[in-house]
Amino acid sequence: MDILCSDLEGVFLPEIWINVAKKTGIEELRLTTRDISDYDVLMQKRLSILKEHDLRLADIQAVIAELDPLEGALECLDEIRSKHQIIIVSDTFTQFAGPLMEKLKRPTLFCNSLEIGADGSVTGYRIRQKEGKKKTVMALKSLNYRVAAFGDSYNDLGMLEAADTASFFRPPEKLVDEYPDFTVNHTYDALQTWIEGVLS
Amino acid sequence: MDILCSDLEGVFLPEIWINVAKKTGIEELRLTTRDISDYDVLMQKRLSILKEHDLRLADIQAVIAELDPLEGALECLDEIRSKHQIIIVSDTFTQFAGPLMEKLKRPTLFCNSLEIGADGSVTGYRIRQKEGKKKTVMALKSLNYRVAAFGDSYNDLGMLEAADTASFFRPPEKLVDEYPDFTVNHTYDALQTWIEGVLS
Repeated sequence: MDILCSDLEGVFLPEIWINVAKKTGIEELRLTTRDISDYDVLMQKRLSILKEHDLRLADIQAVIAELDPLEGALECLDEIRSKHQIIIVSDTFTQFAGPLMEKLKRPTLFCNSLEIGADGSVTGYRIRQKEGKKKTVMALKSLNYRVAAFGDSYNDLGMLEAADTASFFRPPEKLVDEYPDFTVNHTYDALQTWIEGVLS
Repeated sequence: MDILCSDLEGVFLPEIWINVAKKTGIEELRLTTRDISDYDVLMQKRLSILKEHDLRLADIQAVIAELDPLEGALECLDEIRSKHQIIIVSDTFTQFAGPLMEKLKRPTLFCNSLEIGADGSVTGYRIRQKEGKKKTVMALKSLNYRVAAFGDSYNDLGMLEAADTASFFRPPEKLVDEYPDFTVNHTYDALQTWIEGVLS
């Protein structure tokens, strides 16, 4: 039996931090691992920026609730879920993804979580485990599933390499050059055709 | 982080084979593991009954599509899914569950599958793995999830015992007598209160 594993941001949803930066006008929130390579240093920086601007979880969730899934994402997911099981695996935080997952009709999401203080401020974060994407694929394989995975980014490589079959979806050119063996899909139609081709 | 694992038939959906028996008037399809203890013998019997009555997959799916989730099941699942991740784990077959899962807004389902012949007849079945319910809990634990599980029947015991915390939902009295240490919930309201109590 088959199952799908997919990334979230860049595949079905816009990048959340970048859009929070846009909507709040706080340019520093645009920082990514390309600017600060140590993820923990980056996250601590983000948390201190939120504190500095007195942005609590509810404020950020209100901003996120204004965002929408990528154009065509809901229709694509609906179609996929009418035929297959899919687990979405993301490095985002459950509290951030919530309002947008609702707009995607709540597919199952495995991700990380924020620590929230009594006053609603974001006090820290918890990574469920290291290499969470790759380990999800391995766990599904332990259940005798054949796994087809897709994602758009460097942090998806562990998941894509562990899967039985994998595809990039709208990846940066650099990634395609570095990993020329993966299939590349740029549209939801192409992605769905690929899925039907690889899943029996 | 927490996740829920749940049984399907008897918890959110009516028993599928029993209802197919009712709707088709084929009394023999009511046979369960209480009548024929060897599951493979029981399934081969069911498949031969289907063949005898020339019932193909599409015929059975049409019957199943007339069924509805248990009263209050959709509302309960909607509420659960607005707050938590849930994986439904069932011994049913993906082709049977499909029409009813749609009515439950497609929560993720791990189950078994039927083998379908070129003419649409049910030629066999595939169990994804032995102890699939228990192994699902173990796989989720390997992802650093704390698992809360609920189910109604003997085939749920492996899942309930492997989980960090577990509850029976509308179990037969006999099961409660044999396993008095498990929490018992009889209504969706009670189940939801239990879930909110055990999940942080």
